Amino acid sequence: MLTGVHVLLLGGDARQLEVIKKLSELDAAITVCGFDGLHSPPQGAVQATFDESLFEGVDALLLPAVGTDDNGLIHTVFSDGELKLTEKHFTHLPEHCVVYTGMAKPYLKHLCQQRNLKLVELFERDDVAIYNSIPTAEGALMMAIQNTDITIHGSACVVLGFGRTGFTMARTLQGIGAKVKVGVRRSEHYARAAEMGYEPFYTGVLLQNASNIDLLFNTIPTMIITAQIIANLPSRAVIIDLASKPGGTDFRFAEKRGIKAMLAPGLPGIVAPKTAGRIIAECLGQLIMDETIKRGNGI
Amino acid sequence: MLTGVHVLLLGGDARQLEVIKKLSELDAAITVCGFDGLHSPPQGAVQATFDESLFEGVDALLLPAVGTDDNGLIHTVFSDGELKLTEKHFTHLPEHCVVYTGMAKPYLKHLCQQRNLKLVELFERDDVAIYNSIPTAEGALMMAIQNTDITIHGSACVVLGFGRTGFTMARTLQGIGAKVKVGVRRSEHYARAAEMGYEPFYTGVLLQNASNIDLLFNTIPTMIITAQIIANLPSRAVIIDLASKPGGTDFRFAEKRGIKAMLAPGLPGIVAPKTAGRIIAECLGQLIMDETIKRGNGI
Repeated sequence: MLTGVHVLLLGGDARQLEVIKKLSELDAAITVCGFDGLHSPPQGAVQATFDESLFEGVDALLLPAVGTDDNGLIHTVFSDGELKLTEKHFTHLPEHCVVYTGMAKPYLKHLCQQRNLKLVELFERDDVAIYNSIPTAEGALMMAIQNTDITIHGSACVVLGFGRTGFTMARTLQGIGAKVKVGVRRSEHYARAAEMGYEPFYTGVLLQNASNIDLLFNTIPTMIITAQIIANLPSRAVIIDLASKPGGTDFRFAEKRGIKAMLAPGLPGIVAPKTAGRIIAECLGQLIMDETIKRGNGI
Repeated sequence: MLTGVHVLLLGGDARQLEVIKKLSELDAAITVCGFDGLHSPPQGAVQATFDESLFEGVDALLLPAVGTDDNGLIHTVFSDGELKLTEKHFTHLPEHCVVYTGMAKPYLKHLCQQRNLKLVELFERDDVAIYNSIPTAEGALMMAIQNTDITIHGSACVVLGFGRTGFTMARTLQGIGAKVKVGVRRSEHYARAAEMGYEPFYTGVLLQNASNIDLLFNTIPTMIITAQIIANLPSRAVIIDLASKPGGTDFRFAEKRGIKAMLAPGLPGIVAPKTAGRIIAECLGQLIMDETIKRGNGI
């Protein structure tokens, strides 16, 4: 339980409502800003006006998926008010306070470093990334169904990368009957892909493996679907790039050649905000509990 | 091959383009009406103006998914012209001519009976229905992803009916990680569903099995999702009804209770027109060939 633990939650979207629900079930004392546009305030939380005094005595500061932008602004979908995080706010935080966010830009990292506060980037965690790969793969599948005039069942798919997202993407496609090739860089990934019934190949020979396919899913965050690769694709092929911005596709050339190519980061919050919220909530609940126990034990 | 076989194809959508392509590959002599709105005429076919004389010497008359409406009108998406089939047109057809359509309304059945012409309803065929169940299930899956805020992976799904579509729907959901219960009426379906790793139940006890679910897919074409069943569903539940019109759901009551319920017939032509067209084309090619051989043998 989190009885007596003070949490300040700033901004965010529907996912944060699941976080509030979970932490409230764990009996944390929750203050929120950026939810004044909701019909009814989130249950179990106190709504407050954004102010320096809110930061006093806070044990855990929770920021949304992208903590702040490059100027310290916090994304809020349930409020028109501006939440801008500054050095001044941070001076009020106790030194044991931990800052949690999905991923942190340099601005937020700098604020934490200045005060020597622990910063946890949830999306960097393997468990969170694996859970998040489920809504990502379902969103990509939805895009594939929408953007082709064939069934995914029986189609020729290539998945680039066999990490946390590539693994799930390949399994999802196989689950509905697609023929799946997986482009890998490591020999252990090659072996695992073969064991799972995919047709593995090394990304070095992507060109030879991209000639007669219907769908190309990329999870590798470097320029891999180059103009040369695109030139070799059949005109019916559709590229769905799941790597973080700017993706791994030469989108300019794809457009020039008339090949449909889409960059689709951030799918979990779009296609399954409730599940995505629960993933964050479960993880956060556990992390804050662990932190509280550590502090109680004087570690 | 279909060399020397005269085919008249009237109206339809993108699926008929696949039919024309296939029959042209088989060397049939194809005349088409209702495609004048296309940028370029379908390759391998002669475009003609709709006229009685076109029906002379025709071996196979091809009509679209829904042959005609109740007044004899043929659905055309690639033309603004009106194609209305009458008794007069049919008098010009040779007596060996076979009429092919997806499904026939009484109007078309009557025309064929009058001239004693063989009528083939493709969607009645088991093979076509099984192949068509693939795009149907993918379309339903797409709707499920779009209309929920959770992932289908891990969700609690019920599929009603374990026939040609229910079987595919259950397998598709299981393939992406849903928990699948299947409501059946026959003991052999109960056994098969159990063998495949679903949780089967008899539709007589649907009420007890519909209390804590996320998604309800229906393939049974009688009123089965009654007001009583809907009253028992959790408010988050989504109903996707795949049975032919008017479906098996009390939509009026669902709306009253605020439960999302959608009737989704005709998904193959919408989500995968190319695949759906190929399914029809493959079947038609074979049937016309069989018919030609029979006639050649004087059967």
